Amino acid sequence: MNPALLPRLRAPFRLLRNYPPPTTRPSPPPRHAFSTGSGSLLAGHTSSITSQAIGYEKHGDPCEEGTLDVLEYELPRLQKGQVRLRFEMSALNPADINVIQGVYPTKPTAQTINGRTFTVMGNEGTAIVEGFEEDGKVEHEFHVGDRVVMAKAQMGTWQTHLNAFPSELIRLPPSSHNTTSTSLTASQAATLCINPPTAFRMLSDNLSINHNSSSNRPQWVIQNGANSAVGESVIQLARIWGIKTVNLVRVRSTEQETASLKKDLKSLGADVVLTYDEFLRKGGPEEVKVLVGKDEGAELKLALNCVGGDEIKGMLKVLDRGAKLVTYGGMAKKGLTLPPSMFIFKDLIAKGFWLSNWVKQQNDNGQARLEMMHQLVSFIEAGQFVTPKVEIVSLGPKSGLSIEEAKSRVREVMKRQMEGRTKKVLFDFE
Amino acid sequence: MNPALLPRLRAPFRLLRNYPPPTTRPSPPPRHAFSTGSGSLLAGHTSSITSQAIGYEKHGDPCEEGTLDVLEYELPRLQKGQVRLRFEMSALNPADINVIQGVYPTKPTAQTINGRTFTVMGNEGTAIVEGFEEDGKVEHEFHVGDRVVMAKAQMGTWQTHLNAFPSELIRLPPSSHNTTSTSLTASQAATLCINPPTAFRMLSDNLSINHNSSSNRPQWVIQNGANSAVGESVIQLARIWGIKTVNLVRVRSTEQETASLKKDLKSLGADVVLTYDEFLRKGGPEEVKVLVGKDEGAELKLALNCVGGDEIKGMLKVLDRGAKLVTYGGMAKKGLTLPPSMFIFKDLIAKGFWLSNWVKQQNDNGQARLEMMHQLVSFIEAGQFVTPKVEIVSLGPKSGLSIEEAKSRVREVMKRQMEGRTKKVLFDFE
Repeated sequence: MNPALLPRLRAPFRLLRNYPPPTTRPSPPPRHAFSTGSGSLLAGHTSSITSQAIGYEKHGDPCEEGTLDVLEYELPRLQKGQVRLRFEMSALNPADINVIQGVYPTKPTAQTINGRTFTVMGNEGTAIVEGFEEDGKVEHEFHVGDRVVMAKAQMGTWQTHLNAFPSELIRLPPSSHNTTSTSLTASQAATLCINPPTAFRMLSDNLSINHNSSSNRPQWVIQNGANSAVGESVIQLARIWGIKTVNLVRVRSTEQETASLKKDLKSLGADVVLTYDEFLRKGGPEEVKVLVGKDEGAELKLALNCVGGDEIKGMLKVLDRGAKLVTYGGMAKKGLTLPPSMFIFKDLIAKGFWLSNWVKQQNDNGQARLEMMHQLVSFIEAGQFVTPKVEIVSLGPKSGLSIEEAKSRVREVMKRQMEGRTKKVLFDFE
Repeated sequence: MNPALLPRLRAPFRLLRNYPPPTTRPSPPPRHAFSTGSGSLLAGHTSSITSQAIGYEKHGDPCEEGTLDVLEYELPRLQKGQVRLRFEMSALNPADINVIQGVYPTKPTAQTINGRTFTVMGNEGTAIVEGFEEDGKVEHEFHVGDRVVMAKAQMGTWQTHLNAFPSELIRLPPSSHNTTSTSLTASQAATLCINPPTAFRMLSDNLSINHNSSSNRPQWVIQNGANSAVGESVIQLARIWGIKTVNLVRVRSTEQETASLKKDLKSLGADVVLTYDEFLRKGGPEEVKVLVGKDEGAELKLALNCVGGDEIKGMLKVLDRGAKLVTYGGMAKKGLTLPPSMFIFKDLIAKGFWLSNWVKQQNDNGQARLEMMHQLVSFIEAGQFVTPKVEIVSLGPKSGLSIEEAKSRVREVMKRQMEGRTKKVLFDFE
């Protein structure tokens, strides 16, 4: 059923009837942790809907019982111009751990839910527009069935439903074969909003990305944590833009695993992949300079850092004068030790990147961001860019989990995430 | 005798006769380490002149016998368009030590002098134009008797005479009461070229220096090594431009000495002076925030660093989001340890400043630099800016030193410089 074919009602609140088609379900449905059925159960002209959410009352260790809770609450009535969303897939980002712990610099807004001061977690996710409350504008901006990603940080994506204003949303562009929605999968859409844009900006704002460049001076980038979600985006966007990459990764527990990781990154377009040991051994940085062809005029003016340990010194050794070291993570939980001489004589600029900051600094009504998202979508649709491998953690009715079982599964995922033993995790509330 | 009153000869080589007036000296003169008498002895149409120079054949410890030598050599004939200089006062900069040791990134050019491969030392100094070899241009740019400072790095200022091209020189502006020369003293001129411009650029290129600003938001700068030559320039230029300063200094051996140092800096215009201990104690950075009035809207967006030790962490604590940490020295000989979170969440930019780099990056024929120098001279002449306190080390005929005695005096000064026990040292070859 194509939502574009639905009649556009003139009613003040538009709710898509039976979208998605109602699942055949015993009545009354069994009590599951999450239910996405409310859309169909509550179809019609109504402003009452229930969302099931994961969040916390007090900061704490996300792996411990009692920190994260799952609850059901009645969403407030849609305000004029608001859109009602049904989440398809919501991401777990490493930063979410820090938010739950209470050590992240921005905090989601707590709400009074069922008499408790509760914070719904989740920064990233993709949702379908289920309806909106007309205000003369929103009905021209959105169609029921549109797929959106979040434009605002910390909106609370770890839940089944949410009311949001258009300015808080980015409507994904329609694909050529579906006029109202992109052809991305929910997994692709749900991982589109933080990591690929981080890679996109770090490359395009620090290098001269000239698609028509006929320059004979190859541009190189060096990065650590190259198999992170951002790292993989860097490799692919660099390849699209004709930039070459030196990629540093941790050695794996077996030689086969290390070889397989290297192969994976090379299949994404990585030009050079080295373990930290290979890179940091005596003569390693000099070998990289040869590989890069610095003597033949190649430029290495950008280093991307999400780790911050000892390999930084090696990375600095291979950089050109006037290079930039851009830090977007600190996985080693150590300070960066940077020699003063690099700043004074080699004109190094060390700075950071945080997508939230970049978004705030835009004063063009999100136009630059929208263009970037559309470019990313077009790269995906053209088969030039793949989103990270994900592990889908099913919490919805299909999983058959009770609330306690759902909470336990979330804690287990948190633990593996903190130990670095997961791919990118997506929560599926369907 | 005012050089402006001298007849402008049309001879191809102009050498100022008897400028400065010849000193009454026994004939033949005694054999001294340095003699500035050659100008008068060799006056007339001639291109033959002797310079006495301090330099080295091989890199080494500047305090050790055998590293630095003093020698006499015949300057090459003036080339067309070249200017002959007689040095009044030449500076010893901390970086000169590193040049002699062979650890500085730029090296002065070695020459073949008296059959030896010899490098004449010296980056900073002030000299008088003794003559020039006409080429249709130089005679319009320079007058005999003009005072100049060096526009090029590592020209070899630790000697009595030098031939140079106009592009390598900055002619100091005439003062209002002397149409051909500035009213600066030789000491002021000799210390004008590196430290005050370093302070000038670090402030004016990183803050909005608006002389007519009526903004109510006070701008502050925090710096360590505040009693260095650059530090004192920062304090004074900041005061001139209406910027306030927090100044960090090492505690002195007695309380009186510390109090006296603080008083000295305050008399230059320092707003807050603290020892590192006072600043780094628990609550110190918070007190500084209160002193600065950050809650009342004051901005602290620039930290200047020439030390690089533990106090950096404290300095980062008081900085605003989006601030710059500019490193221009590394006296502690330690890396800067900078937390990734400062880069990611507080948008810190860490960079360096090196005047030589700045000069190279100018592509306006030195116009920006000339304007800066003229501004500095006008600040000095207006009594708004004082050059650093200096220790003048006399090596010329007035000192009566033999070559061996001169070398020994230079070694002794190098030793005190390396131990941080000297003011800014100027060599006087008169």
